[in-house]
Amino acid sequence: MDGECKVLIVGSIAIDDIETPFAKRKGVLGGAATYSSCAASHFAPTAIVGVVGDDFPPEHMELFQSRGIDTEGLQVVPGPTFRWECVYHANMQSRDTLSTKLGVFEEFSPRIPEKLRRCPFVLLGNIHPDLQRHVLAQLEDPLVIAADTMNFWIRGAAESLAELIRQVNLLFLNDEEARELTGEANLTRAADRIHEMGPRMVMTKRGEHGATLHFDGEVCFIPPYPARVVRDPTGAGDTFAGGMIGRLASGGVVNRRSLRDAALCGTALASFSIEEFGPEHVARVSRTQLDERLAAIQSTVQDE
Amino acid sequence: MDGECKVLIVGSIAIDDIETPFAKRKGVLGGAATYSSCAASHFAPTAIVGVVGDDFPPEHMELFQSRGIDTEGLQVVPGPTFRWECVYHANMQSRDTLSTKLGVFEEFSPRIPEKLRRCPFVLLGNIHPDLQRHVLAQLEDPLVIAADTMNFWIRGAAESLAELIRQVNLLFLNDEEARELTGEANLTRAADRIHEMGPRMVMTKRGEHGATLHFDGEVCFIPPYPARVVRDPTGAGDTFAGGMIGRLASGGVVNRRSLRDAALCGTALASFSIEEFGPEHVARVSRTQLDERLAAIQSTVQDE
Repeated sequence: MDGECKVLIVGSIAIDDIETPFAKRKGVLGGAATYSSCAASHFAPTAIVGVVGDDFPPEHMELFQSRGIDTEGLQVVPGPTFRWECVYHANMQSRDTLSTKLGVFEEFSPRIPEKLRRCPFVLLGNIHPDLQRHVLAQLEDPLVIAADTMNFWIRGAAESLAELIRQVNLLFLNDEEARELTGEANLTRAADRIHEMGPRMVMTKRGEHGATLHFDGEVCFIPPYPARVVRDPTGAGDTFAGGMIGRLASGGVVNRRSLRDAALCGTALASFSIEEFGPEHVARVSRTQLDERLAAIQSTVQDE
Repeated sequence: MDGECKVLIVGSIAIDDIETPFAKRKGVLGGAATYSSCAASHFAPTAIVGVVGDDFPPEHMELFQSRGIDTEGLQVVPGPTFRWECVYHANMQSRDTLSTKLGVFEEFSPRIPEKLRRCPFVLLGNIHPDLQRHVLAQLEDPLVIAADTMNFWIRGAAESLAELIRQVNLLFLNDEEARELTGEANLTRAADRIHEMGPRMVMTKRGEHGATLHFDGEVCFIPPYPARVVRDPTGAGDTFAGGMIGRLASGGVVNRRSLRDAALCGTALASFSIEEFGPEHVARVSRTQLDERLAAIQSTVQDE
């Protein structure tokens, strides 16, 4: 993609070893920012900010280039790239992390290149809320500040996370995280509480059951794609978030209609992501394939 | 309601003691057939077939009468009514049964009154599949034979259940039951397998996440109502099924559009059911309240 970047994505870039009930793969390109930027780049000029080690394979770097993703903010530093190893349970709904080796990611301090500081659409992947806030401090008044988080920070960095959430206008989290963050068992009331904490838009991800967007007190239900082939769920949530922010950026307008459309695009890309290991499958999706998938998802909530 | 019954509902009628994180209630009218028939009666003339003991309180019997539900097939026999005692966990998603006293339900053998044997819409509540098949043997070619089941029969009466499922054209079950019945972790593939076992229509209930209808290989996603007040989830699934079958019966036509409309009506009634203990709240819902709730559910999957 040419032109000024519309979407800035900051987060982890990793190399994963993944075992599912179907297969075992080593050295898969991973990390939240990887999946998100591959997805966003389908819709709008996208930049990635992150860090990898000097062991990062050139073919992985080429994937970003093939998608036209701006990598000026992707630091390559001496040392090993972040590595993560996990095994999925038979139900594919839950997984165990076998090892996390942060490598160069341990000392990651995101520096946003000058030219990216006015990006209107920003997605802060799931990293320490201190780092997410450090990124925001470098930016000039983005239109949409989206962030993802996880239980680990809800438990371990609650104050910093609360401060981040005050500054964010689109928060992504899954149903269990929404419950844990708010102490509300009811997901609708949990989203109400999160609205009160700051974000005008709250996207509660429900895994195989779809997602719910709360926007200015209204509720949008985003149906799931009725997938039959799920080989690897890794990165599905990041693909969803990246696809959504990219699509929003392509239109530039934030309202109920554009948010719903963007979330359906995110769902469509995530439905490709789970069909294969790694982000390459999403990277290769054609506009025709994407449109067909979108129509299939829409049709599940329509009469014809 | 006047005229010939369109909907026949067979199943349990009980008296429940229920504890939730919000309140504890004793002697609540319960049972699957109770909730289902109260819901169905909003749309079409409905008959209930079941059994209660001679201790069954008159005010409970009056509820059926107030809804115009035909009770000719409701046997009153000497002995205690089926009693069930349960406590919900803090998340309201799971519960423990503290006691089950079958009473007169233990010897229940459903006898369908002559005038009900040609009912076109039949809902077989969750009872032993032998009994569900015994009901079917008494009927004359119903248009829709719907049935609910549970893990207990999947494990304990697999052969009889398989035979029942061959005869049913609309099967209700929840996500975990669909997985257990088919051995498929993937819910879409699980529904495919159930199609192959017989039913043309498979409704997979996902609790707070809505439901999915598989109909002739097509998938309809039925969104949940974004409830904020959940006092007692007991009977929500039965209310959903009863509302759906009643609404289908009122139109008399079975196609994708009527099934989706009927499932949304079932969702709307179930969303009232969970707001209070017992079926009385659903029994009292006005057409205006129902239409407002339906519009609210529809709006969650529409642009405006």
